[in-house]
Amino acid sequence: MSIYLNWAATSYQKPAAMTDAVTAYLQNNHYENQNRALAGVEATSIALHTREVLAKLFNVSDASNVLFTENATMSLNMVLNGLLRSGDHVLTTQMEHNAVIRPLERLKDDGVTVTYLPCDQTGYLPPETIKPAVLPNTSAFVMTHASNVVGTIQSVTECFKIAHELGLVTVLDASQTAGYLPIDMVAMGIDILVFTGHKSLLGLAGIGGFCLAPGLADQIEPWLVGGTGNASELPRQPNFLPDKFEPGTPNTIGILSLGASVKALQAMGLAKIQQQEQALTAQFLAGLAELPVTVYGPKDATKMVPVISVNGQGIDPGELSWALHDRAGIITRCGLHCAPMAHKTIGTFPEGTVRFSLGYTTTAQEIETTLTALATVLKEGV
Amino acid sequence: MSIYLNWAATSYQKPAAMTDAVTAYLQNNHYENQNRALAGVEATSIALHTREVLAKLFNVSDASNVLFTENATMSLNMVLNGLLRSGDHVLTTQMEHNAVIRPLERLKDDGVTVTYLPCDQTGYLPPETIKPAVLPNTSAFVMTHASNVVGTIQSVTECFKIAHELGLVTVLDASQTAGYLPIDMVAMGIDILVFTGHKSLLGLAGIGGFCLAPGLADQIEPWLVGGTGNASELPRQPNFLPDKFEPGTPNTIGILSLGASVKALQAMGLAKIQQQEQALTAQFLAGLAELPVTVYGPKDATKMVPVISVNGQGIDPGELSWALHDRAGIITRCGLHCAPMAHKTIGTFPEGTVRFSLGYTTTAQEIETTLTALATVLKEGV
Repeated sequence: MSIYLNWAATSYQKPAAMTDAVTAYLQNNHYENQNRALAGVEATSIALHTREVLAKLFNVSDASNVLFTENATMSLNMVLNGLLRSGDHVLTTQMEHNAVIRPLERLKDDGVTVTYLPCDQTGYLPPETIKPAVLPNTSAFVMTHASNVVGTIQSVTECFKIAHELGLVTVLDASQTAGYLPIDMVAMGIDILVFTGHKSLLGLAGIGGFCLAPGLADQIEPWLVGGTGNASELPRQPNFLPDKFEPGTPNTIGILSLGASVKALQAMGLAKIQQQEQALTAQFLAGLAELPVTVYGPKDATKMVPVISVNGQGIDPGELSWALHDRAGIITRCGLHCAPMAHKTIGTFPEGTVRFSLGYTTTAQEIETTLTALATVLKEGV
Repeated sequence: MSIYLNWAATSYQKPAAMTDAVTAYLQNNHYENQNRALAGVEATSIALHTREVLAKLFNVSDASNVLFTENATMSLNMVLNGLLRSGDHVLTTQMEHNAVIRPLERLKDDGVTVTYLPCDQTGYLPPETIKPAVLPNTSAFVMTHASNVVGTIQSVTECFKIAHELGLVTVLDASQTAGYLPIDMVAMGIDILVFTGHKSLLGLAGIGGFCLAPGLADQIEPWLVGGTGNASELPRQPNFLPDKFEPGTPNTIGILSLGASVKALQAMGLAKIQQQEQALTAQFLAGLAELPVTVYGPKDATKMVPVISVNGQGIDPGELSWALHDRAGIITRCGLHCAPMAHKTIGTFPEGTVRFSLGYTTTAQEIETTLTALATVLKEGV
């Protein structure tokens, strides 16, 4: 029996209500293609349902501002390439995932400049560092909601208030938080919210998207273009939503899974799950404090999502991760976690860390077993 | 009981072997994320399996040259944006889908110029028209294998031989043919083959991809970029395959479905299915010849995929399509089919046509019933 502690990569043990909904759809051999024929009505209504579920979850007033893509990477590419123009300067942080860094680095070829705001050693961005970094041509501020390496939750509301005062468009990468932390686009000042379905939202892999504040759609050029089944006479992408940003045949089963999983999540209660995972994080941090390891990040369960990066003294993280798997069936993730600058910030580049990340089915017993196994491996050597 | 004749949009009645494989995966709550953790081995092996199945189907020597995307639209955007540079000229045809036209029209903003080669009124591209259209800066030739409006099969081998003699990179959009017509990348001279999984390959919606001839990967810049789980220290996309073109979390269930559906297709026999659908197309064409309708395209079942566009005399195609659905439960697709220039070519722009498209479970009885229903609607009026 293995212990899955790689929830920051993907959630495991999806809600039965979700897998059953998808199974029923599959076994009934439904039409899959939305907006493309008379019989596409059902798939269109699946998409509409999930749009409405997510609009409610994130406080988006108009569900057509919820757009589906394959994943957060796709969303970020669409948003950043559509939003930033040659000559623009963009602010972001050192704690970003390569899904933010690589599109921005690529945009340098198109004349965009980028500043990576330094974070402190826990991975936190001091909000007061934003204003001094703004240039006359700064147009946007892109930030992760919480680090996928050390879990650090950023002060989004405060940062985005400052960004708005400076006239910047605010983009939040909520890959690590959507479905775990409450997200309110209006209250938090989020212009563009990027999410993925397969992490804390408990949907299938291969579905994600982004949500837009009112009026934002007009500021984003279509980057991915193609057939929409509507306004087919136009040689350019139509300007209305969701078609403007949803060319091609969508992953209908992914969309269906996301609607069902979020409903299941809401039935379980987001606040309850958060409370439970916070308690387990605190338990794990307390246990780690007794072991000969370095723990990175805030080390305060209330200031982080349940993602804990650790290194044994002088032990290669790859070897430690493997030993935990080999001897105790514990599944972690080692290395750089697609976030090289975050590791530079916390001082663990290029070797990285061993990352333990928890989910809604993680138990106190699993945390205890993991701590014991870690203690044994550290004692015996990898 | 309805009659589904919209297979050119998406296949219906997927093979039970596919839906059962996906259901088993779902119900076992497998880890979904490939390449991201120790436990990702299973998802990686699913992707590897499907790569190998497709490599064999399309005669790709190295399976890492089979790349997965969400759909053909995504593939075409990646390929065209990655391949074409400012100052390049590209040749294509008037029969293309908006998944080709719109990315090329958008690339005009980046300094790319485009020539749409005229096709004859059946939608066929005379191969001899290619050479005179080539300019000193022409770098690529992009063509659909078969029209999604009238089914016309292009002379790919002959056209691509000419294109190669002229030093062009050849791109084939096989959305309407992959899984129906035999495709051999080597024998047909295809440098880049774009496919979608949900049509004749009988997989789920939301999975597609492209295949590259040896050496082609180096000619394509990464356009969609992000985390790959490998070489995470690099600020730019890694240069090795498949990572170079597969950032972000993939649709593992879609990939699984495609491997299973192609195996099922091969067990049924592609040649047998083609023979069967050709016979039904001939039956349908013969029946249409007796009715007061205009039939577009080659009107020869051996020269087309089973996609037949029709108009009643003086009848709006939308009304005719609706009447067939309303009175006889026949599902067709009306309008422009995301291919406005194709309709200009066949003389049906802007009103379009009613499109009947057949699949591997279509029966002779369904064709008879459809012809009878069409005769009745035409007689009674829409």
